[in-house]
Amino acid sequence: MGRHFLQIPGPTNVPDRVLRAIAQPTIDHRGPEFARLASELLERLKGVFQTAGPVVVYPSSGTGAWEAALVNTLSPGDKVVAFETGHFSTLWCEMAARLGLVVDLVPGDWRHGADPDALAERLTPDVAAVMVVHNETSTGVRSRVPEIRAALDRAGHPALLLVDTISSLGSMDHRHDEWGVDVTVGCSQKGLMLPPGIGFNAVSDKALAHRGRLPRSYWDWEPIIEANRRGFYPYTPPTNLLYGLREALIMLEEEGLPAVFARHDRHAEATRRAVRAWGLEVLCADEREHSSSLTAVLMPEGHDADAVRRLILERYDMSLGTGLGRLAGRVFRIGHLGHFNDLMLAGTLSGVEMGLAAAGVPIKEGGTRAALAYLEGGR
Amino acid sequence: MGRHFLQIPGPTNVPDRVLRAIAQPTIDHRGPEFARLASELLERLKGVFQTAGPVVVYPSSGTGAWEAALVNTLSPGDKVVAFETGHFSTLWCEMAARLGLVVDLVPGDWRHGADPDALAERLTPDVAAVMVVHNETSTGVRSRVPEIRAALDRAGHPALLLVDTISSLGSMDHRHDEWGVDVTVGCSQKGLMLPPGIGFNAVSDKALAHRGRLPRSYWDWEPIIEANRRGFYPYTPPTNLLYGLREALIMLEEEGLPAVFARHDRHAEATRRAVRAWGLEVLCADEREHSSSLTAVLMPEGHDADAVRRLILERYDMSLGTGLGRLAGRVFRIGHLGHFNDLMLAGTLSGVEMGLAAAGVPIKEGGTRAALAYLEGGR
Amino acid sequence: MGRHFLQIPGPTNVPDRVLRAIAQPTIDHRGPEFARLASELLERLKGVFQTAGPVVVYPSSGTGAWEAALVNTLSPGDKVVAFETGHFSTLWCEMAARLGLVVDLVPGDWRHGADPDALAERLTPDVAAVMVVHNETSTGVRSRVPEIRAALDRAGHPALLLVDTISSLGSMDHRHDEWGVDVTVGCSQKGLMLPPGIGFNAVSDKALAHRGRLPRSYWDWEPIIEANRRGFYPYTPPTNLLYGLREALIMLEEEGLPAVFARHDRHAEATRRAVRAWGLEVLCADEREHSSSLTAVLMPEGHDADAVRRLILERYDMSLGTGLGRLAGRVFRIGHLGHFNDLMLAGTLSGVEMGLAAAGVPIKEGGTRAALAYLEGGR
Amino acid sequence: MGRHFLQIPGPTNVPDRVLRAIAQPTIDHRGPEFARLASELLERLKGVFQTAGPVVVYPSSGTGAWEAALVNTLSPGDKVVAFETGHFSTLWCEMAARLGLVVDLVPGDWRHGADPDALAERLTPDVAAVMVVHNETSTGVRSRVPEIRAALDRAGHPALLLVDTISSLGSMDHRHDEWGVDVTVGCSQKGLMLPPGIGFNAVSDKALAHRGRLPRSYWDWEPIIEANRRGFYPYTPPTNLLYGLREALIMLEEEGLPAVFARHDRHAEATRRAVRAWGLEVLCADEREHSSSLTAVLMPEGHDADAVRRLILERYDMSLGTGLGRLAGRVFRIGHLGHFNDLMLAGTLSGVEMGLAAAGVPIKEGGTRAALAYLEGGR
Repeated sequence: MGRHFLQIPGPTNVPDRVLRAIAQPTIDHRGPEFARLASELLERLKGVFQTAGPVVVYPSSGTGAWEAALVNTLSPGDKVVAFETGHFSTLWCEMAARLGLVVDLVPGDWRHGADPDALAERLTPDVAAVMVVHNETSTGVRSRVPEIRAALDRAGHPALLLVDTISSLGSMDHRHDEWGVDVTVGCSQKGLMLPPGIGFNAVSDKALAHRGRLPRSYWDWEPIIEANRRGFYPYTPPTNLLYGLREALIMLEEEGLPAVFARHDRHAEATRRAVRAWGLEVLCADEREHSSSLTAVLMPEGHDADAVRRLILERYDMSLGTGLGRLAGRVFRIGHLGHFNDLMLAGTLSGVEMGLAAAGVPIKEGGTRAALAYLEGGR
Repeated sequence: MGRHFLQIPGPTNVPDRVLRAIAQPTIDHRGPEFARLASELLERLKGVFQTAGPVVVYPSSGTGAWEAALVNTLSPGDKVVAFETGHFSTLWCEMAARLGLVVDLVPGDWRHGADPDALAERLTPDVAAVMVVHNETSTGVRSRVPEIRAALDRAGHPALLLVDTISSLGSMDHRHDEWGVDVTVGCSQKGLMLPPGIGFNAVSDKALAHRGRLPRSYWDWEPIIEANRRGFYPYTPPTNLLYGLREALIMLEEEGLPAVFARHDRHAEATRRAVRAWGLEVLCADEREHSSSLTAVLMPEGHDADAVRRLILERYDMSLGTGLGRLAGRVFRIGHLGHFNDLMLAGTLSGVEMGLAAAGVPIKEGGTRAALAYLEGGR
Repeated sequence: MGRHFLQIPGPTNVPDRVLRAIAQPTIDHRGPEFARLASELLERLKGVFQTAGPVVVYPSSGTGAWEAALVNTLSPGDKVVAFETGHFSTLWCEMAARLGLVVDLVPGDWRHGADPDALAERLTPDVAAVMVVHNETSTGVRSRVPEIRAALDRAGHPALLLVDTISSLGSMDHRHDEWGVDVTVGCSQKGLMLPPGIGFNAVSDKALAHRGRLPRSYWDWEPIIEANRRGFYPYTPPTNLLYGLREALIMLEEEGLPAVFARHDRHAEATRRAVRAWGLEVLCADEREHSSSLTAVLMPEGHDADAVRRLILERYDMSLGTGLGRLAGRVFRIGHLGHFNDLMLAGTLSGVEMGLAAAGVPIKEGGTRAALAYLEGGR
Repeated sequence: MGRHFLQIPGPTNVPDRVLRAIAQPTIDHRGPEFARLASELLERLKGVFQTAGPVVVYPSSGTGAWEAALVNTLSPGDKVVAFETGHFSTLWCEMAARLGLVVDLVPGDWRHGADPDALAERLTPDVAAVMVVHNETSTGVRSRVPEIRAALDRAGHPALLLVDTISSLGSMDHRHDEWGVDVTVGCSQKGLMLPPGIGFNAVSDKALAHRGRLPRSYWDWEPIIEANRRGFYPYTPPTNLLYGLREALIMLEEEGLPAVFARHDRHAEATRRAVRAWGLEVLCADEREHSSSLTAVLMPEGHDADAVRRLILERYDMSLGTGLGRLAGRVFRIGHLGHFNDLMLAGTLSGVEMGLAAAGVPIKEGGTRAALAYLEGGR
């Protein structure tokens, strides 16, 4: 009984408004009503990406949007520089390799973001693109994209900048145009508060001009952008998820993006205070790089994060994120993004606090109390 | 953003499952599909009332079910004994008077339940019925219905026992048959986790045999019970709310009534511990009479409960119950009934704690923490 | 598979938009959001009743709204004139008698509306009210309310005029103020395209001034109108159905009431053309009195209307209205009101045509074709 | 007002049950509840594909599932034989070419299915695969897949058989295993009665063994099939559409696939009878090859199909399919698949009949009547 607390770092709690929007009857995707919907949507979408350029919408997961970013811009054998910031950066590199690209991976410890200084020395002339994960969903570490951009600019290097904003879009500030990003990769089920099923590419003029030779059809930007001009798609779009997308964008506009970002910053800070008050460690090791959409918590030696997660799911009906890849069992992740507010955070942290205690993890009292104290003052 | 916390003592948070059930297309209320629905429902309903007899379902509020209980059983000028346990007991008496009954009201201080000892001396031969509010929604005080029954039995008095279970049905133990209740009055929007719009009368054989002469038509049990035998209604039933009722009853059966009651007991105890740890007073003055579905909290002198409620609504998006009648401004009420769980309670109490502090009400720290400590141990 | 055709004369097909509105989370009925909803609703409602006065909204069926009209205005022993226009007029009279009123019933043949000429001779000085069913749901006959009003005016008689618009409100023109109606009785599940569960009384100043002495509490207009001024209700209102009501009223406003009425007139005429082309008889015997919301069809001798209805339900998944009271087995009723359009009517008539043929009822071909021909030309 | 008639050949009318299922809250796609959902779904899916092998589910359109079929099985420069049966067969060939395959296209007149006799002479040893569109959505022509299989078998040729069942799956008999198909391509928004957003590949053992060297990552069957064994996905699956898929599969099972196919056959025959009675021509030129899910209707010379479609949309609120590619303006397409029944068909054909007349297209009367006559007899 009672509502499930879905506090993984995505999919996030979908607002009732959005679920009801999705439940509208499907319409003719070649008719005038759809054309109006799509035209409106494509304009609204630019706001959340902070771009004046096109945003391509795919019926796909975020992984699909990764593939789209690569196959549209690169050619077989192209070299890309990537940063080992966590599990998802690794998966994106594996994808690039499978598609025939050569990946120059800057190693990392999964507790820091992409290192702008390390980038400079990798920028050999043959580098075609730089791949950055803005917000590593597996670690809760944010990469400083503007500093990456600055490193490219300092080097005067023409490489494309491809940025994964899968778990930051709509919850943390990301400025596609201002930051000089060439392809922003996003998806529906995190800050946009939708179910999974939509992937996005925001595309710069430079990226549009620089088409690679990797084979592509489904992911090809051109016929989509062309058809979008009239409000249509070259293949059947995911109509009902688009209904939800419109509703979610309206909700974000109603709150205002700066307020949305401030809300996430505030909840993230409150969460870190709780974690530290419990005597536990936040995985992210650099104060400049904390994620505002999730927090990964390191377990004390000898305690299995997944055992705690299972206990919390069974006893308190809350889902937390598991440790991925090399972090399996060592961290759990608290998602505090999307359709979320102070009292949901209070319930979330209370569940973590009770769950850690019940699992026998040695914590100090007062974590939730510390978060509440910050929330009280932080308005 | 984020979910509203609807923590008034009803209407309560309606489960998504129930809302989706309600959103099914309306059907022919004279057709075979409806007959199956109604027959199933009327059987399932008996479980929650703990009766083998009929339960009459009205398209009405709970107030309508009060009226039904009176006009079916009583005659103009009949005397009824009632107890001043709070705002709703008073309203029920006013209704009785308006319908032409003579009310003998046992006075009360709104901090205690109906007094079984006081009943004995009121049981003159002309008393036709005794009216008791099982769980006073305005005060969070539970009346000890079995002791009222025992007082009637000791006196060998034939008066009918009419019990309002509006805010206890489906959240606190109520045994229509075992406790010898003649009419149990209930409604949809509290423990049954439905929107408002349905009222109930569970009816004993004695009540059915003892029909009064007050004029009645809409509320008349007989044609309804007669039509119900074939799965129909003498007038159009509230089909979509009945869909929701079926779903809600299934949910209660899945959890099991004893577990449902235990959950509410536990949340009520945790709430009282929080209130006391804050240094505040629970309105209910008798340990035997605490409600398990809501808690009314007395404000310190000089502090307006409604100002706190407004602040909490604006800042934390939580609705709490106002003080009613003579308690206006002096108490606020926390609803912890219906579709509710530990983390929702944690969020609720956190919101109260932050709100009291923000409103400048002098409280001690640690109320929410005390509740969590009880919840941790209380499983 | 495929959609059920709910072609009884109410409940009608509820639009998806309305069902989704109803599925919104329930809110605090004493909070500011509810007050805004109620205030908006109560204003919008006036439009559909064509009144500047108050409309009282009950959690009830239409039958409850009948009772409200009587108990608010009349006193025990009052004489009311009523017309036997069909099953529902008879039920209303039975209710009046049960509530202690004296009914002077103008007999009728169930094929004509209320006779304005017959009224004159009944208007003895002791008549307190005249009860008219605007659109007899059991017969598809419309009473000419303005002519009833004129008869009262000619006689200079002060009797109140109580009009049941249960199956005409929102589908056929009804002018509460202009026609001098004192109480208009309505409900949710017909022209208003909602599920059942709401009853209405639109009330004239004269009716408000003329309060009867029948006992009343739940149905009492005064506390409701008083609380409504601030956007509230004296008891818990049916919040979720009110969400649906708002949406339905918006839909009616979008189409415009004159267009709504014209649509129903057109579908009714097309239906009658189909019936006559099949060689069957429409029950309504006066061309001035055809209902625009439903058509009752007389079966040829020796054929059971309910057998046809069952066959159509089983074979074509369409619900039609049964013959009620003395018309049982002799007529079936086609509802063509509410959320309905040309192609739904074409499907409906096709189902009737195929069903009659399959049941062995001797009909001529071409009924549906005749309706389509009218629809083609009738725009 | 009234329901929109969505009679394009997909997306089709989504049942309310399915829309409500989709509106359930999104859950953790790595948790135990999701694992149960996915495991159940993947088993149920086999039934509709009539296969014992795996079915791969993609967050994608049907176009994506085309791409998946190609990139999993073929290598750059591979030769594929395809048939020009209509617009979609052409698009699939274009995709193959863009992905680096060599297409040997058997020309066609868009009024016939794939010619099994023509296949034999194309089966040179270097042919890697044969691509067939089972049911051409642009023409309403069905290809005889078992005869294509027989031609391959007679030639003893090892080419893979790739079959597009996008508009036949779940509405027309397709037997993946029995017919020796290697990859069946499907999607959600046609016979499966879902919104768009899911693509499918049913995969034979032979196809699984025969992996091509086209670059692939998102579409790669192996990690998906591997993760599916435990009820999971290598990337975030479209949870809410999967809820709907489960519900839709249950609905198909309730009716039974043979009954589903018979229903579609019957509606298609009724539609053709209407078309011919109007004096118009069905596009499909071979009696053995009529589609059961849609009917393309040829316009008389001098009449623009799209003008008729626009008129029908505006006047009767029905969407019909446009003529695609070389058929633009020359045909319109009636979708009669998915969640559909006799009375919906009657409404659909009535709308076409009225629309053709209103547009001044010379037709004979009686088309809808001819369809009804067939439906009456055809049970």
